[in-house]
Amino acid sequence: MNIGIIGGGSIGLLFAYYLSDQYDVTLYTNTKNQSDEILQNGIYLIHNETVNSRRVKTKWFEHWSGKEDLTIVAVKQYHLENLINLLVEKQTKNTEYVFLQNGMGHLKLLKYLHANTIYVSSVEHGAYKKSSFEVEHNGIGQTKLALYQGEISLPPSLLTIPNFPIILEDDYFEMLVRKLVANAIINPLTGLLKVQNGEIIRNKNYFSIVKNLFREIEAVLKLERGDRYFQQVIEICQKTSGNRSSMLKDLEANRPTEVDAILGYILDEAEMNNIDAPICKTLYHFIKGSEK
Amino acid sequence: MNIGIIGGGSIGLLFAYYLSDQYDVTLYTNTKNQSDEILQNGIYLIHNETVNSRRVKTKWFEHWSGKEDLTIVAVKQYHLENLINLLVEKQTKNTEYVFLQNGMGHLKLLKYLHANTIYVSSVEHGAYKKSSFEVEHNGIGQTKLALYQGEISLPPSLLTIPNFPIILEDDYFEMLVRKLVANAIINPLTGLLKVQNGEIIRNKNYFSIVKNLFREIEAVLKLERGDRYFQQVIEICQKTSGNRSSMLKDLEANRPTEVDAILGYILDEAEMNNIDAPICKTLYHFIKGSEK
Repeated sequence: MNIGIIGGGSIGLLFAYYLSDQYDVTLYTNTKNQSDEILQNGIYLIHNETVNSRRVKTKWFEHWSGKEDLTIVAVKQYHLENLINLLVEKQTKNTEYVFLQNGMGHLKLLKYLHANTIYVSSVEHGAYKKSSFEVEHNGIGQTKLALYQGEISLPPSLLTIPNFPIILEDDYFEMLVRKLVANAIINPLTGLLKVQNGEIIRNKNYFSIVKNLFREIEAVLKLERGDRYFQQVIEICQKTSGNRSSMLKDLEANRPTEVDAILGYILDEAEMNNIDAPICKTLYHFIKGSEK
Repeated sequence: MNIGIIGGGSIGLLFAYYLSDQYDVTLYTNTKNQSDEILQNGIYLIHNETVNSRRVKTKWFEHWSGKEDLTIVAVKQYHLENLINLLVEKQTKNTEYVFLQNGMGHLKLLKYLHANTIYVSSVEHGAYKKSSFEVEHNGIGQTKLALYQGEISLPPSLLTIPNFPIILEDDYFEMLVRKLVANAIINPLTGLLKVQNGEIIRNKNYFSIVKNLFREIEAVLKLERGDRYFQQVIEICQKTSGNRSSMLKDLEANRPTEVDAILGYILDEAEMNNIDAPICKTLYHFIKGSEK
């Protein structure tokens, strides 16, 4: 199987490294500079202080034409709107798509694609892009994939890659909502407070905010059996206790955050349904105001 | 006139320095160590990079007996509960009191005092305690005094001290509410965001929070003609644009903050009146959780 991966951020590099062991992978990067550096060096994967490298085909995104069997889109949500137009323009074959974005804001864009089969996902890896060709895999999680439209025809070998588990989920909507709820609580709070994930459940005052924020989100998204979602948030905080969330990292690196795809989506839902969400709104403005 | 000042923090040192020019002032400190150091050095006042010093009588608080004509209580709100008991125990004469605390939480304690005359105040100076006997006066503001009970008998000379204006207000309640509203907005937001006062009105996302938070406080405190209060908050942010709020300084110095006297008071009022105050509550928990 040929796989094209669009986006040379931490997640794009991670997927390119792991998938290139068994598949014919081409990584499409936003800058020619990055693709040159990867051609020269390969991709370096740093895990537990050991470094491994792999040669990976890579091209500047200009050369993408969707000719691979599978196209994995690994750009941030806030770059997706522009990218979708380019995909529609440049695509020459009917490739299958996997979208790796956080939040749920990207769903409304998918209808513009020419595609029979689209997967969406929930990526639960910790990864840090150390340079244009080096990625640290500092939290081995899993990638959940669910069909958004079309029929599943993924090779079984995709589900058995060492240190890189990919599992299939039945219900894309529930999968994304679960991730959204966790992201909407953990990301803004840790980003604003500049603390590790575990701190927001350890500190009893922060945990009060977690609970009140969850109740608000539960009402907006009309979650059924909300306690399952709440329990999941706590479990993620426990499991990733020492991790720094992507929003915290983005803020500290003066990068834009994904708050629009996360709290922005919830606030849109709240407005459509005429529900007050004062805590979500306050957190949204805290994060937007803190972006450089 | 004899004046006793209780508390050797930045505000206690500031009042002791300025008032000792014309009055017989005794500063009562919490530790014997501090009173020894002030006896040895005097109080140093640093203003615009010039340093002046004054000899001031000072005693360990153990020796206080309320024998001065006027007693100025300059301890933080959160030390007041214990202190009031000591004042009642140790007081031997009928001194008049001035309370310098922020917020409105202290009002409920005043009924326990043996006092005919009590003033409350709104202190609008910027001061920083550099050491046990050195205080920086980095923002010359004013001290508003208002009678809480009794009759006014302050000497007119008290109202004409250079660089240390003291003015009398008619309505203690409105005076404290104005200060409370400003404190409840400026202190928690700047403390949490670690920004100067001006930033919360300059940054349009932070300013959205300011507006929503104000509407919440306006409802809880049942403010009439709320726009006056809101305008005042903006003016303070403009005038003290480059200042760092006391709550920000407290958090950075790992000191307890006055959030209980400020947002805590508003949350108590909200609960008594059965009004939701989700933004106040969230900010309260952010600040309490950030205290070391």
